[in-house]
Amino acid sequence: MNDNLKRQLNELAREPNPLFRQDFLLTWEHDLKAFESVLRTAEILKSMHQQKLSAKMFDSGLAISIFRDKSTRTRFSFASAADYLGLSVQDVDEQKTQISHGETVRETANMISFLAEVIGIRDDMYLGEGDRYQREVQQAVRYGYQNGILHQQPTIINLQSDLDHPTQTLADLAKLRDYFGSLEALRGKKLAMTWAYSPSYGKPLSVPQGIIALMTRLGMEVTLAYPEGYDLLPDIVDQSKQSAQKSGGQFQVVHDMEEAFQNADVVYPKSWASFRVMEQRRDMLHAGNQEGLKQLEADCLAENARQVHWECNRAMMDATRDGQALYMHCLPADITGVNCQNGEVSTEVFDQYMPHTYHQAGFKPFVIAAMMVLSKIENPGKRLKKRCE
Amino acid sequence: MNDNLKRQLNELAREPNPLFRQDFLLTWEHDLKAFESVLRTAEILKSMHQQKLSAKMFDSGLAISIFRDKSTRTRFSFASAADYLGLSVQDVDEQKTQISHGETVRETANMISFLAEVIGIRDDMYLGEGDRYQREVQQAVRYGYQNGILHQQPTIINLQSDLDHPTQTLADLAKLRDYFGSLEALRGKKLAMTWAYSPSYGKPLSVPQGIIALMTRLGMEVTLAYPEGYDLLPDIVDQSKQSAQKSGGQFQVVHDMEEAFQNADVVYPKSWASFRVMEQRRDMLHAGNQEGLKQLEADCLAENARQVHWECNRAMMDATRDGQALYMHCLPADITGVNCQNGEVSTEVFDQYMPHTYHQAGFKPFVIAAMMVLSKIENPGKRLKKRCE
Amino acid sequence: MNDNLKRQLNELAREPNPLFRQDFLLTWEHDLKAFESVLRTAEILKSMHQQKLSAKMFDSGLAISIFRDKSTRTRFSFASAADYLGLSVQDVDEQKTQISHGETVRETANMISFLAEVIGIRDDMYLGEGDRYQREVQQAVRYGYQNGILHQQPTIINLQSDLDHPTQTLADLAKLRDYFGSLEALRGKKLAMTWAYSPSYGKPLSVPQGIIALMTRLGMEVTLAYPEGYDLLPDIVDQSKQSAQKSGGQFQVVHDMEEAFQNADVVYPKSWASFRVMEQRRDMLHAGNQEGLKQLEADCLAENARQVHWECNRAMMDATRDGQALYMHCLPADITGVNCQNGEVSTEVFDQYMPHTYHQAGFKPFVIAAMMVLSKIENPGKRLKKRCE
Repeated sequence: MNDNLKRQLNELAREPNPLFRQDFLLTWEHDLKAFESVLRTAEILKSMHQQKLSAKMFDSGLAISIFRDKSTRTRFSFASAADYLGLSVQDVDEQKTQISHGETVRETANMISFLAEVIGIRDDMYLGEGDRYQREVQQAVRYGYQNGILHQQPTIINLQSDLDHPTQTLADLAKLRDYFGSLEALRGKKLAMTWAYSPSYGKPLSVPQGIIALMTRLGMEVTLAYPEGYDLLPDIVDQSKQSAQKSGGQFQVVHDMEEAFQNADVVYPKSWASFRVMEQRRDMLHAGNQEGLKQLEADCLAENARQVHWECNRAMMDATRDGQALYMHCLPADITGVNCQNGEVSTEVFDQYMPHTYHQAGFKPFVIAAMMVLSKIENPGKRLKKRCE
Repeated sequence: MNDNLKRQLNELAREPNPLFRQDFLLTWEHDLKAFESVLRTAEILKSMHQQKLSAKMFDSGLAISIFRDKSTRTRFSFASAADYLGLSVQDVDEQKTQISHGETVRETANMISFLAEVIGIRDDMYLGEGDRYQREVQQAVRYGYQNGILHQQPTIINLQSDLDHPTQTLADLAKLRDYFGSLEALRGKKLAMTWAYSPSYGKPLSVPQGIIALMTRLGMEVTLAYPEGYDLLPDIVDQSKQSAQKSGGQFQVVHDMEEAFQNADVVYPKSWASFRVMEQRRDMLHAGNQEGLKQLEADCLAENARQVHWECNRAMMDATRDGQALYMHCLPADITGVNCQNGEVSTEVFDQYMPHTYHQAGFKPFVIAAMMVLSKIENPGKRLKKRCE
Repeated sequence: MNDNLKRQLNELAREPNPLFRQDFLLTWEHDLKAFESVLRTAEILKSMHQQKLSAKMFDSGLAISIFRDKSTRTRFSFASAADYLGLSVQDVDEQKTQISHGETVRETANMISFLAEVIGIRDDMYLGEGDRYQREVQQAVRYGYQNGILHQQPTIINLQSDLDHPTQTLADLAKLRDYFGSLEALRGKKLAMTWAYSPSYGKPLSVPQGIIALMTRLGMEVTLAYPEGYDLLPDIVDQSKQSAQKSGGQFQVVHDMEEAFQNADVVYPKSWASFRVMEQRRDMLHAGNQEGLKQLEADCLAENARQVHWECNRAMMDATRDGQALYMHCLPADITGVNCQNGEVSTEVFDQYMPHTYHQAGFKPFVIAAMMVLSKIENPGKRLKKRCE
């Protein structure tokens, strides 16, 4: 164990744990102390892993994942985190279960949880539903625990909902802290969260919403940029404005990519659908309106196609501070000339920043592990120190 | 470790283990001593889990599950049991394997078992086949072990067949013991195992068959009730009669739900298909007779629809002893007004007993773990005591 | 720990480890020392398992499998090996991941590997592509490790490619060593690697290619036999000729099954497609040429049907040395009268050698575990000895 790790462990052991017995659904339900604990614990776990130290906190127990949308990195991040701590991953495959046979969410949630420590849920397809579903599961296991059905209450971790993507945005924050040296150093730094063109449509809003909601709380100067019509949820935009005021940061909305990039220290160009489209899509999906969906997709792609100039390329990057802003992406990106004809980012820019975006992704397993550890163990600093001795 | 747990462990350590090196396919292949060992071991493991004590009996090894039908609670119960004991779950996904490429059961069973400790199998779709398949696997691994191909013989656990569902019925028995205080207290208690209306058709017979076969052996007064035509396998009905005679219990068949509920201490209302329908269905499935299957389903649903009054509601419950019988269900239930228009049980009754049915389900992972432990370890009492010290 | 195991562990501890930090893609990229290390380590692990000794070398970490073709024994062998060493298996299900959403191989490989120790890949469907894909993954994780993205470089293990199937052929070699007493005893033994009739078409070439490439290096007299037109990749055939010359063995190609069986000590009759067919098939698959594929299959099956006499039956076996050659197969075999009307082998011969083919398969989990251990641990002899004390 090196000195830095020892110091971090001592600090963690001294601090109160604001996340003990807490779920993690939305960053705006937690205060800055909670983020600091997550980042510190994630950093500790990352160092321990690098130094080949064991972080087995559990002797057994399930970490259950429910993915209602495709996933590679979040799936493997969750599995890696669970395994590193000693939990076994069990995926709820809704095709293979009897959920379609008429089980209620309350019932299923309890039935799978008798020996479960954690439940991670991705449900980002339906606007107004993903977060609601996660809360239903949360209520269900709380009921089970309070009624003596479950010996323990599994922690719910949001692996992406219609509202927020906290394991992503806290991994992003970990990257920013690493890049700029400290959270304090983020104050006044300019971050451009911008829409970018993609040949697909209907990408979730959770990342841009999560980024503006989180980064405005850290005193950053956040610019949200998108073509007219690609709005995010108004509540989250309003809340970001207020957060910026409170934190001494700034928040503005513009409709021009280059304007947003002006003097930016960080750019995060990424495609998303407008929430109005997401609403129509949800209603059509529920109604089984295949014709409507086809038409909606065609309309959106046509609309999208008018925005093909929203591409993060060298010329755009030149507008940023010294032409050297940090380029961020949650991956996978639509890269012009690689996996599409025109995409969110040019090959040149993507390749230049590849080690950075990969490194950014590398924080996610440890952020998830940190959420697990903090929720389950009252003083993880003490416990982890023992593993390192 | 609390005193009750210590006492239980000492008793288990003193007793002979009737299940050492035994598979668990049908309750009627085992004697009452075996059930007592399973229930005691399950109770110990449940207490240990509640007291956050480790029950890691295995350092490595696979627990293989083969699900030929959808499953949530049994799948997760099996996975939880395996994980708690230190085994890793591997599911045989028949879509992803080469079984369709012409492997024989003997071959597959050996090929997956080189490092397997346990194989759990659900195969309840085809009357006359599920149990046979489990025995084929049993023979196969016995061959492998006897011929020096396998270093160990994996224990076969029936996770539901066409005949029996022992992990369910022993969990049910654990619930009854818990509810009434002891197995002895079950003598003379009246249990009504009744058919109930469901808008689906073709549900397996294994639960009602398993319940009448098991509970008649414990001196209970078992009434089996169903509309004319919804017979169970005659062999199992006959055997239940004989068991009741031997145990000093009673067994009768009636064709009226209310009659069965009269003064019952326990009611278990649940839909199933008649075995004659299951036979026709099996033959049509084998013949790929899609037209026939559609017609059979239509006929059965029409027949079912005449039995919509077989619903467990407040009025029915009022007929039971003091109107307060214990309502049991293996879940998921078809609940009127929740997941269907008319179902097996009214919302009111289901909600009233929800903590009980959930609690009932909570025994299953520990019953399965008990079967694993007893089969694999000669004196599990001694071994588990060490884990608690 | 018995004496033989102790002796083997001491020898392993003394030897240099030629596979430390090495991937295992093709046998011809490794020298004989490497095979000896794999076989010795596999034997040690097999003995340890038989003696119920723990071989937990890892406290945590993922063993990732990517199966681009169906698999039972390799899937379970990989899972068993990983579990025995303390790694958790995570399967990349390309349906459930975002790979179809445009991720590059480089990206996916890194995203899943943050806590991965091993990646096993089966990709044998497309001639000229399986090996290339494995090397892409290899390059990707090397990039990740060198750029500080991954804390460790996961070992790539070929679980079958278009070129070779090293975990199979080394398990085969382990069986041969066990059967004949030593590797030295294989010198001059005659092995017939022959095509055999199967009612299916398009089986991979990796096993026959891997067998001739490997066994010629051990001084065996290898005869490759197939009907005109069912050629293997010319490069590998040429290389096998040269290997035989170097090793003092022999290599010849004939077009008559019986001729190949003459005085053979070992026969390995197995169906495959010619590489020309595999090339056409690949191109048609890529072009989505369904009509062409149907026609190709029909043509091949018609062509196959003319070769129905290439069956390993008693009469054929009578031609071998004393009529008692060892019959080998990688399983599953097409057995006449069992899973097809006419197949690769008669029931009589298959049944006679069943314990041998099953035993042969039983080496695979330990060969895979040996590859993992040798690649990850500089001196596994020392480490495993500690586990046995």
